[in-house]
Amino acid sequence: MAPGLFVDGRPAASLPLPDRGFAYGDGLFETLLVRGVAPAWLALHADRLATGLAQLGIPAPPWREHLAASLAAYDAPAEAWLTLRLTVTRGGGPRGYPPPATPLPRTVIEIAPAPLDPLVAPAPLRTATATLRWAQQPALAGLKHLNRLEQVLAARECRERGLDELLVCDTAGWLVAATRGNLFLLRGDVLATPDLAACGIAGTRRRLVLDTLAPALGLEVEVAALAPGALASADAVFCCNSLRGIVAVGRHEQRQWRAHPVIERLQAAYREALCANLG
Amino acid sequence: MAPGLFVDGRPAASLPLPDRGFAYGDGLFETLLVRGVAPAWLALHADRLATGLAQLGIPAPPWREHLAASLAAYDAPAEAWLTLRLTVTRGGGPRGYPPPATPLPRTVIEIAPAPLDPLVAPAPLRTATATLRWAQQPALAGLKHLNRLEQVLAARECRERGLDELLVCDTAGWLVAATRGNLFLLRGDVLATPDLAACGIAGTRRRLVLDTLAPALGLEVEVAALAPGALASADAVFCCNSLRGIVAVGRHEQRQWRAHPVIERLQAAYREALCANLG
Repeated sequence: MAPGLFVDGRPAASLPLPDRGFAYGDGLFETLLVRGVAPAWLALHADRLATGLAQLGIPAPPWREHLAASLAAYDAPAEAWLTLRLTVTRGGGPRGYPPPATPLPRTVIEIAPAPLDPLVAPAPLRTATATLRWAQQPALAGLKHLNRLEQVLAARECRERGLDELLVCDTAGWLVAATRGNLFLLRGDVLATPDLAACGIAGTRRRLVLDTLAPALGLEVEVAALAPGALASADAVFCCNSLRGIVAVGRHEQRQWRAHPVIERLQAAYREALCANLG
Repeated sequence: MAPGLFVDGRPAASLPLPDRGFAYGDGLFETLLVRGVAPAWLALHADRLATGLAQLGIPAPPWREHLAASLAAYDAPAEAWLTLRLTVTRGGGPRGYPPPATPLPRTVIEIAPAPLDPLVAPAPLRTATATLRWAQQPALAGLKHLNRLEQVLAARECRERGLDELLVCDTAGWLVAATRGNLFLLRGDVLATPDLAACGIAGTRRRLVLDTLAPALGLEVEVAALAPGALASADAVFCCNSLRGIVAVGRHEQRQWRAHPVIERLQAAYREALCANLG
């Protein structure tokens, strides 16, 4: 039995086949930060998942029950930081692309120790602009679906170039995100982040920054088309995702930034909100 | 045990997890037409698979051995027409997008009776242009990788509209393919098919038509950017894939076509080549 693996809430070692998640990437996932048995910002993940399920036409399985059952069975210490991947697929069905009329969706949950302590700000990132560009597809933009080969290729390029992260543009040349998180640029008192109407994943921590953390610090937020040239003139740049929180970019190609007080205040606000959210 | 399912050449009911094919669609597949234990045009499938593996940086598993073992175990009558899906994934690995340095790829084979007799030409298709457009991604174009949500969405639209097939354009407005096959337009003695440098799957039967069947009938072939307007002025239109062979389009929106002698000759040449290929 693979430790930390659950299918439809029950311990498992493998995925029943056929499964359209495997066949076509016909499904969605969420990467949750968990402390003990408490997932952080579950409501933001649930919102994005619901949006994706509706858009793909997948009926929602009882994933909350499966999540609770899986965490109870995993039985981690209350103070342990965990990473939990929750995948919902359209389930089985006959051969071929057309989705079954009455799908039986499947929930797969994988739990493991978190890769780092989310209460400690990671070291600033060394980044560059990716050579690979991501495709524009408004019908899927924003969703955290299972078609993630573009992220795999970008992550491979990142490793080959020996960097911490790459910042990726879409095929039209606009900034989208980092390979594993969203992107923010500080310009004066304005925090700008790429518009994701055509490309990218609408991260839960991006939404937290836009809706909660930035306004609380008196920062104006702007969701806009951003060219890579905007990086050089930014006062500060950071990435965010569910496992690492807010991470400053220390260097992007020739441009370097020192620690910036606004990022430090955002990181402190993030840690405080995380602890409050976990109760 | 699910009948006809094999993992790494052994009968199986499920996919061991973690698997990056499931997590990210990090892999490739081929849909083979098989008679008894003989796959049709295996060399064309092997070529495309090798191209995809090289492009994704996945080392080739011993998939030919797995294929032979699976077909031997399935033990179908020599005259039976089968459909065989051969999937190669990057296998397991640590959490996250970066591919493992030394992947252990996995071969998954699913065998079932073929949905139709490939020696009988299917009825002409009623088609329309899809509302959904497919993304341009030169880094993945041509490959039959596991990120196929766009095909799923197009197939769903096709069913909702009550048609046999949809012809799909890319986000720049160029014709790409049908939801489950490649597309050819006959214009005089020239057989034209969309260029797939930015979008689409380079089908084995497309290549067969371009390289072998069309030249043998004295047709000139053209791989080009084709606008949807080219359909109305075409003398004949057909789709092709591994399971259905060459299928005429009988009606596209307001435009109708009668049976065309060139398509009938191509279909006859296809059937003859299929029987010859299977020995």
